[in-house]
Amino acid sequence: MLEIKRLSIEEARVLVEGSIKASNEIGLPMCIAVTDESGNLLAFERMDGGKISSISIAVDKAFTGAAARKATHVYNELCQPGQPTFGIHITNGGHFSIIGGGFPVTVDGEVVGGVGISSGTAAQDVVVAEAALKHFYAATGYTP
Amino acid sequence: MLEIKRLSIEEARVLVEGSIKASNEIGLPMCIAVTDESGNLLAFERMDGGKISSISIAVDKAFTGAAARKATHVYNELCQPGQPTFGIHITNGGHFSIIGGGFPVTVDGEVVGGVGISSGTAAQDVVVAEAALKHFYAATGYTP
Amino acid sequence: MLEIKRLSIEEARVLVEGSIKASNEIGLPMCIAVTDESGNLLAFERMDGGKISSISIAVDKAFTGAAARKATHVYNELCQPGQPTFGIHITNGGHFSIIGGGFPVTVDGEVVGGVGISSGTAAQDVVVAEAALKHFYAATGYTP
Amino acid sequence: MLEIKRLSIEEARVLVEGSIKASNEIGLPMCIAVTDESGNLLAFERMDGGKISSISIAVDKAFTGAAARKATHVYNELCQPGQPTFGIHITNGGHFSIIGGGFPVTVDGEVVGGVGISSGTAAQDVVVAEAALKHFYAATGYTP
Repeated sequence: MLEIKRLSIEEARVLVEGSIKASNEIGLPMCIAVTDESGNLLAFERMDGGKISSISIAVDKAFTGAAARKATHVYNELCQPGQPTFGIHITNGGHFSIIGGGFPVTVDGEVVGGVGISSGTAAQDVVVAEAALKHFYAATGYTP
Repeated sequence: MLEIKRLSIEEARVLVEGSIKASNEIGLPMCIAVTDESGNLLAFERMDGGKISSISIAVDKAFTGAAARKATHVYNELCQPGQPTFGIHITNGGHFSIIGGGFPVTVDGEVVGGVGISSGTAAQDVVVAEAALKHFYAATGYTP
Repeated sequence: MLEIKRLSIEEARVLVEGSIKASNEIGLPMCIAVTDESGNLLAFERMDGGKISSISIAVDKAFTGAAARKATHVYNELCQPGQPTFGIHITNGGHFSIIGGGFPVTVDGEVVGGVGISSGTAAQDVVVAEAALKHFYAATGYTP
Repeated sequence: MLEIKRLSIEEARVLVEGSIKASNEIGLPMCIAVTDESGNLLAFERMDGGKISSISIAVDKAFTGAAARKATHVYNELCQPGQPTFGIHITNGGHFSIIGGGFPVTVDGEVVGGVGISSGTAAQDVVVAEAALKHFYAATGYTP
């Protein structure tokens, strides 16, 4: 029997909290999604002013981070025309995100969830997601 | 130019909070979704133990409450075979929910958002959603 | 070679105009869709206050009226469980509407377009669509 | 409670009117879509001769202009292979348009709707959409 480690909703909230804090620091309202280790949605918040088109993008980024176990910006590079992974962005019913801002959430090297940020540029989304992860490890005492 | 009232994320959280409180009272972990007045997702939480299949059901219920401006259990009755609205459950790309637990959130008679609850029976989902609305009006001072 | 009669955009506007007039008479803001004889969208208006969930329903009703060449309320009866047409509402990618308010637009017995109304009850939607057709024939001088 | 500004149907018609005028000037019949600030369809017209395949493209362009708050031709550049936003064209169920001709409609810096034009080249669609916006501001007295 497998024993799976999965973010609790309370831990998911810590990621949302860290994302909001970082979004406020750069002055950009974001869509924030947190999934469990299987890529299923745990928590979502659209800050006042977050983009409508970023709702599903944030969810897809968190899904991809957890389910594919790599940051979405890594897939952006792997998925260029001419690369062997080109085309992966249309798999999974179009929910495989290759735009930066999605990350796996790991604890002791194991994927326990995903976080996805959207509404800024890919670079801004990455900054907020990384700050959220940093906040998460500081607040919970877990190690990546 | 139209002037539209829309739930803020802080107000959406009050609905999530009220839903969790009511879910705990009946001892059933729920999926909770809150949308804006146009049916676009504002906030979501899957309580520890909430059903995976209820993620999208909760979101669809909140969407329907806001976008169709009626509680989803009302549509369940209107959508019975033999009724003139039979068939509405497959519209809107299958996102039109006719299962109890979705409600419009109104302020002074205007729809400002939607709330959707899923993981229990339809009757249990209705109980939690109604308690969430009661909590919302008490906490904010708004009138329906 | 076939010669197809098709509503012009100017004629489609007459149907929209008639729908708005009738909607105002019953005091209900509607979503109004007009398609050509092939079921492809020609004109659409969402009156101030029309329902968000009725956008696609109005379009689907107009599509069905034109493409299936019957009023959608007729299909509502034909599509009851136990009837041989039960199930038709999930065909055409879910765009086959069986809710009253969709009609073919005919000229000299030939289908030249479709009109679909949504936001009220099915009965109200039918009333507005029928008034729109009456207005259309009066304004253009065509006969059904 | 947030206070949102949204195009009325009368204002949406001004955008359609301006689009038709500009389309006639370049002698190309267009599909014209106008959405509200959340990206939901408000008005649509397919001019006599407008392309069937441009119906949904025009709607998607208007959606993207409003929901993502940028002109679609801007995303075309941002979404090139090698760019960090590569892949955004398949998000939102394939409704995120990166083909020129979609614009947000802003009033005093706030997005109140979206306009989308399709049937010509991307460059021609941009010309018509920009002329429609110019017409809109002149006719209504609003400032972008």
